Amino acid sequence: MERLVVIGGDAAGMSAASQARRRRGSDDLDIVAFERGEYTSYAACGLPYYVSGDIVDADRLIARTPEAHRANAIDVRTRHEVVAIDLDRRIVRVRDVRSDIERAERFDQLVIATGAAPIRPDLPGIDLDGVHGVHTVPDALRIERDIVGAAGSAAERPGSARRRRAVVVGGGYVGLEMAEALLTRGYEVTLVHRGHQPMPTLDDDMGARVATAMRELGITVVVDTEVVGFTAGADGRVGAVDTSNGVLPAEVVVLGIGVRPNSGLAATAGLEVGRSGGITVDDRLATSVPGVWAAGDCIETLHRVSGEAVAIGLGTHANKQGRVVGINVTGGHARFPGVIGTAITKVCDIEIARTGLSVSECERLGIDAVAATIEGTTRAGYYPGAAPIAVKTLAERSTGRTLGAQIVGGVGAGKRIDAAAVAIWNAMTIDALINVDLAYAPPFSPVWDPLLVAARKTADRL
Amino acid sequence: MERLVVIGGDAAGMSAASQARRRRGSDDLDIVAFERGEYTSYAACGLPYYVSGDIVDADRLIARTPEAHRANAIDVRTRHEVVAIDLDRRIVRVRDVRSDIERAERFDQLVIATGAAPIRPDLPGIDLDGVHGVHTVPDALRIERDIVGAAGSAAERPGSARRRRAVVVGGGYVGLEMAEALLTRGYEVTLVHRGHQPMPTLDDDMGARVATAMRELGITVVVDTEVVGFTAGADGRVGAVDTSNGVLPAEVVVLGIGVRPNSGLAATAGLEVGRSGGITVDDRLATSVPGVWAAGDCIETLHRVSGEAVAIGLGTHANKQGRVVGINVTGGHARFPGVIGTAITKVCDIEIARTGLSVSECERLGIDAVAATIEGTTRAGYYPGAAPIAVKTLAERSTGRTLGAQIVGGVGAGKRIDAAAVAIWNAMTIDALINVDLAYAPPFSPVWDPLLVAARKTADRL
Repeated sequence: MERLVVIGGDAAGMSAASQARRRRGSDDLDIVAFERGEYTSYAACGLPYYVSGDIVDADRLIARTPEAHRANAIDVRTRHEVVAIDLDRRIVRVRDVRSDIERAERFDQLVIATGAAPIRPDLPGIDLDGVHGVHTVPDALRIERDIVGAAGSAAERPGSARRRRAVVVGGGYVGLEMAEALLTRGYEVTLVHRGHQPMPTLDDDMGARVATAMRELGITVVVDTEVVGFTAGADGRVGAVDTSNGVLPAEVVVLGIGVRPNSGLAATAGLEVGRSGGITVDDRLATSVPGVWAAGDCIETLHRVSGEAVAIGLGTHANKQGRVVGINVTGGHARFPGVIGTAITKVCDIEIARTGLSVSECERLGIDAVAATIEGTTRAGYYPGAAPIAVKTLAERSTGRTLGAQIVGGVGAGKRIDAAAVAIWNAMTIDALINVDLAYAPPFSPVWDPLLVAARKTADRL
Repeated sequence: MERLVVIGGDAAGMSAASQARRRRGSDDLDIVAFERGEYTSYAACGLPYYVSGDIVDADRLIARTPEAHRANAIDVRTRHEVVAIDLDRRIVRVRDVRSDIERAERFDQLVIATGAAPIRPDLPGIDLDGVHGVHTVPDALRIERDIVGAAGSAAERPGSARRRRAVVVGGGYVGLEMAEALLTRGYEVTLVHRGHQPMPTLDDDMGARVATAMRELGITVVVDTEVVGFTAGADGRVGAVDTSNGVLPAEVVVLGIGVRPNSGLAATAGLEVGRSGGITVDDRLATSVPGVWAAGDCIETLHRVSGEAVAIGLGTHANKQGRVVGINVTGGHARFPGVIGTAITKVCDIEIARTGLSVSECERLGIDAVAATIEGTTRAGYYPGAAPIAVKTLAERSTGRTLGAQIVGGVGAGKRIDAAAVAIWNAMTIDALINVDLAYAPPFSPVWDPLLVAARKTADRL
């Protein structure tokens, strides 16, 4: 029987397996998935909200357990790591993590969905207790145990009213979400970021709005600062973070420095890896070797605005790509059309979103962009709960094409980025965007939607 | 000096005047605006929220007073009604409502922005005290006085614990919003609707979801029922609503039956009026007579999906159209590209939105549509506050073109319609919609956005 092997049991791999199973029965196609860890199909993006306590039961983060996949006739083998791919003989070498025994497994078709790995710089003290990454379910369980336990012992310490201190390293999505989580847990939180402003996927002027809002929430935001190491305290755990701008005491440290594609296995096997570090695939997500596919955080994909190949690790892409591969491995013809860099997050009530290119990306790419930023409200100004919103849009000077949008605002601000995303996806001009028929009623929008006001101002500048 | 006359001092007219003034100074262009009522630039869409008490100060609904317009060198004359337009002599006849004196006013260019009038069927008893329309600021002031006063006297009535009863006639946007308002004010509310389900701009299956949600809120929803008259109670005020299905006692009645374009003045002057009842204009919003323009609820405009001319009274269109006219009357070249019927409202926490065509509209138009409805959540299922959301999408069978979308859901559901609206605006196929890069993070969306899930299911059915 034909045999499909999937490497990696998370979003992309298991979406591919599930889609393939939906299209081909178990009497027609064997599907085996190897997963190095214990969990399958877990919501990595949800981990900060487990740490914060918003999600009480970590099991809620598991979209589908290995048992559920097995009941769906997908032979999931957890704690099995694929250590080599032999493309000529069409076998993978698999190590049973528990027994350390390796064996060969043949495949007819192969899906590589090895994900991404958190960047963990080789700094002094990075392996101290209390310095945490936050990439896997065990990571989150570990942090949660640490901070809840620590908070408990702090509360018991007689005569000490000082709040425990946490330092979050990195001002990207995970950094912000972990800052919120630790704040929610009662920590005194400092965010250290090497760039000028947090949220480097926004331009600095919008990042500055994020920084201001975070400071208003009580988070100390330290920018233009490089972490150079970690020092132990009296108890042997981490006690301080050493930076280019001095020492920050901390009982807990969380790293949110970013991820890089896990493409080493594929590269060693001889598959092409792009400059982004992601595996090179075509728009059907096929590698250069017939019957070998790749999907999820380990690949690079087309950025439809810049035309560049980019590696953007995000669960929603992984799921979509997994579906595309699942269709294609079973003889279908699905295409993944690329991405435009849409992303969203929040810190407490501050919602942050972006899509397309930023001005700084345009500068790097040599695209002449015109930008404008407006301030408005999420609802009609007179309607209760109208929250402030700032919207920045940018357009190409020569063509008027909408290039990007950024939003920082209160509740109801963030998901408005989707309208901009669909506009950019369709290469609308900024002028055409002004009159688009967006939904209006006072509880939902001012009579001129803030996105359209930003478009108007950008068009005026063109 | 060149003289621009504007008929109608609300959104479209005053947007046109303001835009014209921005482009041409007062030494270069006279602008006179005649408004029959007392107010200018008011938010008609906000009136239900004044009645509900969400907006305490009715002045908040006035975006710009006559005085503010005058300070901007726009000669606003309130309580002045234009009673005739002489297109040959280029004059309007204006009646001073207070003195009843008529005079002629010349124009070089004319903007007709006469708005729409609420439909008020000629039913027995419709003029009884306590039967209210809700179209203007005075309407809203009157209702508010009536219901707050009445509620007060009810509370004072010894031994009476019965809540006062309100009947809302009409299950469209205004009807739903007034039902919410009266519920908020402590009334026992019955909504009477002639169609099978409330929200006739949705398909019945989605309207049924609205009806269910409203009933759960404690609103009595009576459908397939025609109002035939109103009967006085012992106090001479309205006491009951007579319907095709029996008598509904009511201390207060609110009519929300819809509006029709105020195009009579234009028609009498010889301008063309379409089958929708709206004034015919081209995409620059010019009428057939040079220098005579029309904008807002009194015109008809292109529905970009059906290709029909439609009259949709909505403040956001009026504002956009006013801007276009303001540019064109001053020598610019702006176009209003039409609408796609996007709309949104809510009843308490139930958000309702739609865009494009519904299945029933497609049937009327002879378009072969395929539709699918999915149920999901507004946030990741494991994230606190994830509210239910139902999304229906439809596509043309022969081309796959996305035709429409409808949403009924909890907080955070409604404004998601904008992504569908931009997709439909750009004539995306439903298949292309599946992979669009919408924003994902657990507090904002499941990993597959509900809109994309609906698109997937619709595409599967094609």
